[in-house]
Amino acid sequence: MATDTRDRLIRTTSRLLRTQGYGATGLNQIVAEAEAPKGSMYFHFPGGKEELAAAALDRFAERIRVGITRGLEQADSVATAVGAFFDDEIARLERSRFVDGCPVATVALDASAAHDALAASTGAAFRGWTALLAAGLEAEGRTPEAAHTAATLFFATFEGSLMMAKAQRSIEPMTTVRDAITAILVAP
Amino acid sequence: MATDTRDRLIRTTSRLLRTQGYGATGLNQIVAEAEAPKGSMYFHFPGGKEELAAAALDRFAERIRVGITRGLEQADSVATAVGAFFDDEIARLERSRFVDGCPVATVALDASAAHDALAASTGAAFRGWTALLAAGLEAEGRTPEAAHTAATLFFATFEGSLMMAKAQRSIEPMTTVRDAITAILVAP
Repeated sequence: MATDTRDRLIRTTSRLLRTQGYGATGLNQIVAEAEAPKGSMYFHFPGGKEELAAAALDRFAERIRVGITRGLEQADSVATAVGAFFDDEIARLERSRFVDGCPVATVALDASAAHDALAASTGAAFRGWTALLAAGLEAEGRTPEAAHTAATLFFATFEGSLMMAKAQRSIEPMTTVRDAITAILVAP
Repeated sequence: MATDTRDRLIRTTSRLLRTQGYGATGLNQIVAEAEAPKGSMYFHFPGGKEELAAAALDRFAERIRVGITRGLEQADSVATAVGAFFDDEIARLERSRFVDGCPVATVALDASAAHDALAASTGAAFRGWTALLAAGLEAEGRTPEAAHTAATLFFATFEGSLMMAKAQRSIEPMTTVRDAITAILVAP
């Protein structure tokens, strides 16, 4: 039961960070929407909202890491894997009517500069994802430097086009960028 | 004087949206930091925080449009212009110790899905910027479709790498992406 509560607190926080950011997310809202007993929040997260948000970001980062690893294993090339990654996220964004998104991105923009613990989590997320994709690109014959550049370019295009899609309430930026970046990432 | 107050309200709002997002920015904070007389906010912006935020986004979008136009006029190619644009923003981000950023991006992530007036402003900003850069790319000989794709790719890489730089408190994602995208945008 305690684990369930902890889990619900993290999942609720992840959703709220994704859709409204860190600054607008209050502990009362988290506890209410997680249907968590009062007091459970500080029992599980003595550091309060910042510790809870960092835990939510770390769990999200791990979930994406697992997804990228599986995607790279299943696809015949990195370009195919990232195309499928885009397709999944485009479908998710449409299903949510442009509400959903990436909690790491939202927190990076609205809170990472002011909160060291959050910056540690947002930084580790991108460094980990980039290194993972770069390893896949190296395995296709790129130099470490070229692989790092291409992986960084991929995450920038993905996050940037997701943000533009939300800004325009249209998936067009994501489909356009998906086609362009998969062409760029075709094995050398 | 009235114009000064209106102007201060808009500039303060733009700064707060950029650094902490829409949800965390309250009217009391805006009025206090703008040193605006109480009551002036609803005099200038009867629609309240949403109208004020939309006005701040629209003014920011116009300022960037002017900057892009000037950059394209002064540079010998679009690739040179976007490289200079990256350099300016990298310097600004470092100066601000990773606090500064793009208010359109922050609001796109934390509020555009829930607020139609804000989505209108964030959408118009990206559509306008993309069309302007696409026109410059067409003038270099690209087809309208190729120019639109390249312009969309540019803004995705710029906004995405700016977000990653904030997430990692490092300008490395921006310098890496700057070099990659300027190489991609070299005239066909």
